[in-house]
Amino acid sequence: MQKARTVKGGVAAAKGFRVAGVAAGVRRSGRNDVAVIFADAPCETAAVFTTNKVAAAPVLRDRALLRGGVGSMRAIVANSGFANACTGDTGLRDAELCAMVAAGELGVKPGEVLVASTGVIGRRLPADRVAAGVKAAAKVLGSTYAHGLAAAQAVMTTDTKPKQACAKTEIGGKTVTVGGMTKGSGMIEPNMATMLGFITTDAAISRRMLRKALLAALAKSFNRVVVDGDESTNDSLFLMASGAAGNPRIEKEGPDYDSFLDALETVCVSLAKQMAADGEGATKFVTVTVKGAKSAKDAELAARAVARSPLAKTSWYGRDPNWGRVLAAVGYSGADVSDMKSEVFYDRVWAFRRGEVAGEAQLKKLEAVMKKPSFTVTVDLHLGDYDCTIYTCDISNEYVHINADYTT
Amino acid sequence: MQKARTVKGGVAAAKGFRVAGVAAGVRRSGRNDVAVIFADAPCETAAVFTTNKVAAAPVLRDRALLRGGVGSMRAIVANSGFANACTGDTGLRDAELCAMVAAGELGVKPGEVLVASTGVIGRRLPADRVAAGVKAAAKVLGSTYAHGLAAAQAVMTTDTKPKQACAKTEIGGKTVTVGGMTKGSGMIEPNMATMLGFITTDAAISRRMLRKALLAALAKSFNRVVVDGDESTNDSLFLMASGAAGNPRIEKEGPDYDSFLDALETVCVSLAKQMAADGEGATKFVTVTVKGAKSAKDAELAARAVARSPLAKTSWYGRDPNWGRVLAAVGYSGADVSDMKSEVFYDRVWAFRRGEVAGEAQLKKLEAVMKKPSFTVTVDLHLGDYDCTIYTCDISNEYVHINADYTT
Repeated sequence: MQKARTVKGGVAAAKGFRVAGVAAGVRRSGRNDVAVIFADAPCETAAVFTTNKVAAAPVLRDRALLRGGVGSMRAIVANSGFANACTGDTGLRDAELCAMVAAGELGVKPGEVLVASTGVIGRRLPADRVAAGVKAAAKVLGSTYAHGLAAAQAVMTTDTKPKQACAKTEIGGKTVTVGGMTKGSGMIEPNMATMLGFITTDAAISRRMLRKALLAALAKSFNRVVVDGDESTNDSLFLMASGAAGNPRIEKEGPDYDSFLDALETVCVSLAKQMAADGEGATKFVTVTVKGAKSAKDAELAARAVARSPLAKTSWYGRDPNWGRVLAAVGYSGADVSDMKSEVFYDRVWAFRRGEVAGEAQLKKLEAVMKKPSFTVTVDLHLGDYDCTIYTCDISNEYVHINADYTT
Repeated sequence: MQKARTVKGGVAAAKGFRVAGVAAGVRRSGRNDVAVIFADAPCETAAVFTTNKVAAAPVLRDRALLRGGVGSMRAIVANSGFANACTGDTGLRDAELCAMVAAGELGVKPGEVLVASTGVIGRRLPADRVAAGVKAAAKVLGSTYAHGLAAAQAVMTTDTKPKQACAKTEIGGKTVTVGGMTKGSGMIEPNMATMLGFITTDAAISRRMLRKALLAALAKSFNRVVVDGDESTNDSLFLMASGAAGNPRIEKEGPDYDSFLDALETVCVSLAKQMAADGEGATKFVTVTVKGAKSAKDAELAARAVARSPLAKTSWYGRDPNWGRVLAAVGYSGADVSDMKSEVFYDRVWAFRRGEVAGEAQLKKLEAVMKKPSFTVTVDLHLGDYDCTIYTCDISNEYVHINADYTT
């Protein structure tokens, strides 16, 4: 297996794709709001969608198109501003309209075009403006870094930064590229909730192995991100493979698959961390690691409980080494825990160890850790061999501002 | 069955009890911080404690004392400022010391004294100061309203108001009184998380029926309150019955039990609502009702998901009728839901009905509702006959302030 190397780039980096992002007035703010990803030839495509029972129209449409989460696709159209969720039959028609307009402009079939929306729930999608954006975007498609960046900007909502990542690897003597972009900074967790993710690759790979790789990478990246514990109606993660790299087609597990997966995971983990760090109003990027759990399930329950706890998250914002809240969250998580056996660390500085409590001098050291823009909270349960890591952020005043003022 | 009537009063109202609250310097702020509840004679006592696996020393001690959650008790000592949680063997000794000092002062056995603490986790309880407070309190015990109020103040942490309630009923020609006090404004939910609750009654009732009534009242009151979804290490709810009312002793279900239960529920629901309304930083008291669910479990899952959703809670703070977030929370709750069948109301004003979305005029009406200090969010799933109501509040900037600055 070849270890992937990280390079600058995004969704336009892999061979065989042209992309664009334009400002079409969907958002009224003048910001980019419509993105188009176009493949020169049909692509093996895999996708994963929200598990929320209230799913947005584009999700319902794409799911119906991709039987078993896979298919052969040519393009994806995405908009920000409106989620097109809770919009009934009108919403489904609006989603289909966007796909039809894109198909017409790009010279492909509507059934080869996927759609994705993000923004406010329950308002009708201004499909005419999205359609105008698609037409404008189709005229400026390209493969430069600037093209990828414009597309990444077009899917931002409360994100403060566009999120892109790219990795390269060698498979059968050929250079294979994986590049992607995501949006998402609130409602992240679990099951990759409110994110839109778009990943392109020029690897030649079978549909079955593409889906397998997507699910494996997802488990280690987007499904490990917690912002506020809300799960959205619109989450979608797409992976298109053009095959343009010319590598021997990956049809089964083995070193070639492993190389591809490593590149894909590298991209997904980078994007996931960028999302956690840009959590709505976040001032801290926090990695929560639970070690020594009795089972994998316990490790995940405990880590997620800490990452979700409003009390822990506000203590991080306040630079307050209030490890008691961390341990309390583990206590109610459902995981097996004995506080007399547990240890809590902020980075490598202990706060609590098997009944021993940090004194004033130790608290000073902890406060120094918490002044950093990113740190790791580790809970060692000393009950077994399982661990789990979750990427998250603090809750700040700004989170409240952003979400109190989102629609009105 | 006799319907209970609400009267002014608290934990000192029932016959057979004397109480006090004093400022003993545990909190350094000069506020009351030690409360003592003393019964003139042994009382049938029932209690319920946190389900958090990381339980505080006083909880561990009281649980061991009350086998099966019941016993015969004379007194409860409570302090604010320190939770005495995650404090190991030292914490257990400190809790026992407080009970011993109280027993000495009050002329009872240490095994007849319950203890309760609330405050910061993981710092050693200043047991000497609590002990001094117990001694001071023992000298000023009394049964007036002022005595109950002083005790209610002594258990406050981030609460902005003392919380008391009292109800009277008639059983067998005798007036029976139930009075209580609680603290708790963060970490409330589920399973009555961080609250301390103290209820006294002069009803004559068997231990078995007392516990039965406590569990029944709990299910309809404290277990229906959500503030932030964090569950604490210290939650304790105590109910002491002196029998001083002289009613025919309640030994089984029937009209007398029902009358007692109605009084107890009246007190518990009032205290629960006070807690939700005084949620940390809360500016709105919100009642979430889910109707038309397929099962009781679905109704509760859905209502709790809405009440816990940071996105819904911040929208209430922002007076933003963002019903999409409400429906999205129901969607990820695990409950069965079809957005095409669902309706969402704020008080009696509809926001979404079976695919139809509130337009601008309707949104104006919704915004008017949301300006009120309290309102009800109702989701009718139209899938069955089950409903559930949860009491909660918004999340404000103040919540973040309070919790970012709690210990340091």
